[in-house]
Amino acid sequence: MDIKEQVLEIGAKAKAASRELARLSTRKKNAILEAMAEELDAQRALIQQENQKDLEAGRKAGLTNAMLDRLELTDARIDSMIKGLRDVAVLQDPVGEEISTWNRPNGLEIHKRRVPIGVIGIIFESRPNVTCDAAALCFKTSNAVILRGGKEAIHSNLAIAKAMQKGGESKGMPEHCIQLIPTIDRAAVEVMCQMTDYLDLIIPRGGEGLIRAVMKMAHVPVIKHYTGVCHTYVDASADLEMALRIAENAKCQRPGVCNAMETLLVHQDIADEFLPKMGGIFDQNGVEMRGDSRTTSLIGTAIPAKEEDWRTEYVDLILSIKVVDDVKAAIEHINTYGSGHSDAIVAEDEKATVQFLNEVDSATVYVNASTRFTDGAEFGMGAEIGVSTDKLHARGPMGLEELTTYKYVIEGDGQIRE
Amino acid sequence: MDIKEQVLEIGAKAKAASRELARLSTRKKNAILEAMAEELDAQRALIQQENQKDLEAGRKAGLTNAMLDRLELTDARIDSMIKGLRDVAVLQDPVGEEISTWNRPNGLEIHKRRVPIGVIGIIFESRPNVTCDAAALCFKTSNAVILRGGKEAIHSNLAIAKAMQKGGESKGMPEHCIQLIPTIDRAAVEVMCQMTDYLDLIIPRGGEGLIRAVMKMAHVPVIKHYTGVCHTYVDASADLEMALRIAENAKCQRPGVCNAMETLLVHQDIADEFLPKMGGIFDQNGVEMRGDSRTTSLIGTAIPAKEEDWRTEYVDLILSIKVVDDVKAAIEHINTYGSGHSDAIVAEDEKATVQFLNEVDSATVYVNASTRFTDGAEFGMGAEIGVSTDKLHARGPMGLEELTTYKYVIEGDGQIRE
Repeated sequence: MDIKEQVLEIGAKAKAASRELARLSTRKKNAILEAMAEELDAQRALIQQENQKDLEAGRKAGLTNAMLDRLELTDARIDSMIKGLRDVAVLQDPVGEEISTWNRPNGLEIHKRRVPIGVIGIIFESRPNVTCDAAALCFKTSNAVILRGGKEAIHSNLAIAKAMQKGGESKGMPEHCIQLIPTIDRAAVEVMCQMTDYLDLIIPRGGEGLIRAVMKMAHVPVIKHYTGVCHTYVDASADLEMALRIAENAKCQRPGVCNAMETLLVHQDIADEFLPKMGGIFDQNGVEMRGDSRTTSLIGTAIPAKEEDWRTEYVDLILSIKVVDDVKAAIEHINTYGSGHSDAIVAEDEKATVQFLNEVDSATVYVNASTRFTDGAEFGMGAEIGVSTDKLHARGPMGLEELTTYKYVIEGDGQIRE
Repeated sequence: MDIKEQVLEIGAKAKAASRELARLSTRKKNAILEAMAEELDAQRALIQQENQKDLEAGRKAGLTNAMLDRLELTDARIDSMIKGLRDVAVLQDPVGEEISTWNRPNGLEIHKRRVPIGVIGIIFESRPNVTCDAAALCFKTSNAVILRGGKEAIHSNLAIAKAMQKGGESKGMPEHCIQLIPTIDRAAVEVMCQMTDYLDLIIPRGGEGLIRAVMKMAHVPVIKHYTGVCHTYVDASADLEMALRIAENAKCQRPGVCNAMETLLVHQDIADEFLPKMGGIFDQNGVEMRGDSRTTSLIGTAIPAKEEDWRTEYVDLILSIKVVDDVKAAIEHINTYGSGHSDAIVAEDEKATVQFLNEVDSATVYVNASTRFTDGAEFGMGAEIGVSTDKLHARGPMGLEELTTYKYVIEGDGQIRE
């Protein structure tokens, strides 16, 4: 059987499994998640043994220490996967919820009801814990999942998936609800991206290169997260002490993540007062600053920014800074160079605030808070399958609800159309 | 300027216009829609003159009478476009609605708010009234629209779009909110399908050939309507008189539309009693029946169905009929051969009904009603941009709400992440 046939067979099995899955009660799904957690714990030694194979191969292949670190399944990481399964078990199940109900003059009763999407493909890179986290969220929402992990984690991913399947099936999970593509051949990704008969959605999780490759091939709908070029704009009306705290937090608290600030925009009227203080704080935090000419004249340690800086997601202790004429110019800059992820205004003026919140075309817009809050847990979603920079079908942090769609259920008593 | 540059320029202008559009109040948008209606009325003669050019070219090109009929802009059809604009003006504007609001323990207030999608591309075939209807719905939801109509209607479409632009701009509509691709070159469609920087969504409206062509090229998200292979299943528990009325209505009331029934499934226990009566009614309506062997043994005028019949959308007075063992077999048949559009069960038994409604994986599922009700107007949406057989982002009839997405607006008072 060639790769294409193999992947299509996995797809057909997932589609069949998704029908079975739609029949499981929430109570049964939760019991299955608990059984998966227990089995993961029971197979801890085996999983770590398989993980060792990946780590050895990674060392031989010359992976960096950072990559090897991401790959390693320590006890703490296995504990965290187990806890994740139990956390998902206690979350409310969105499947079956009535989104709205209304009656028509002819007596028809229309129910708009939340249902699973069907079969979801997750294409991800090196962290093997994604196998567990993503499968748990898809399962809780009664979606069948097809996982395709990075080649460097293949043994770890297979071991985790097998433990989840064994644990789940011991409590009546239908076969093929959770499948992992067992080959590292890249052709498998192309087949996944184009098997519209079996896959309802693909969520790629990884770097921009992976996501662009998926987008190029995909005929199946994709929800993606390109980059997080997040901005903080400090308005003339800002409480400057608050602005210093928020900007420091947005850049420095965890610079390597997608909701960290990459560009600071400052209103010209308060730049003289604000930027020297702000620059001092960034200097203390070891932040490299790249600014426009007005910025470099106010912060001695800032170097000149190039055009490409405004589009760059540094994910590092580097920041671009620009002085803008007004809130309109700030909005224009964000809508031109941003990635539609998370952008904040620090302001006391109502008019500037409303304009900013309305006109910045991003998934998440903040007033007087750090962009670092764009996160499923911080939103109170309980779990997160990712953050979307797309507008359809989900935008911003995606939890369980975003893994569902809806159907219309219509009850009549013999209505026909005149 | 080549076609690609021309279409990209239209895209860039639409993107810019979409920012302006997001600022218009509902009252202003409604006044603009009214001005469009007036201008359409004022330019009636000019529009019909341009329409004559298309009709003459169509006759020369050998279009069928049915195609020429679809193309013709009679007074009644222009009246209907004008009325459509006024109807859309009085509909509630979904933009700005709060979908939900909640507070976090740290004091952040999260608002999930409905916003325009941005720029929408509509690719359609011969009916020039789509120019007006689709542009009105996109405008009301503050989306910029790029229209691409069929080559046979190019003069009519341009005349309608110009009238709408002139009328709208007289009341302050930003330029480039409504644009029509002015060339009939097919290369323009490919450029549209791939200009992800400017287009947020494509809705193709037309036959399966058009939609498959768009899907093959598209990198932009697409919401589509493939086919309506709709089923009615008559359960053993059905009120047979009701079943006769519903099945007759679903097939015969308007056979040429997507929500008409194409396959009738009948439980084996009532087939002997039901099918001869049903066959008589279909005979009276001139319906050609194609059945499985159990059906042909019960209806003398039915001819044997082939495998391909179960997948066929006849959109005509033709029907496939199958006797099934039970509700499970009916569900299996529908999920295998159906198109996920609209399917009905006629039954009194609660258990069979619930199973059918839960397990049939279609946008709209009915109990004891005709599938003919799948329609924006019948749902009470007021207007319809189309029906989706996709699951994301909209499913079933799509009105104004389905032309929006959401953003998170978060209000803080200095929160930073610990």
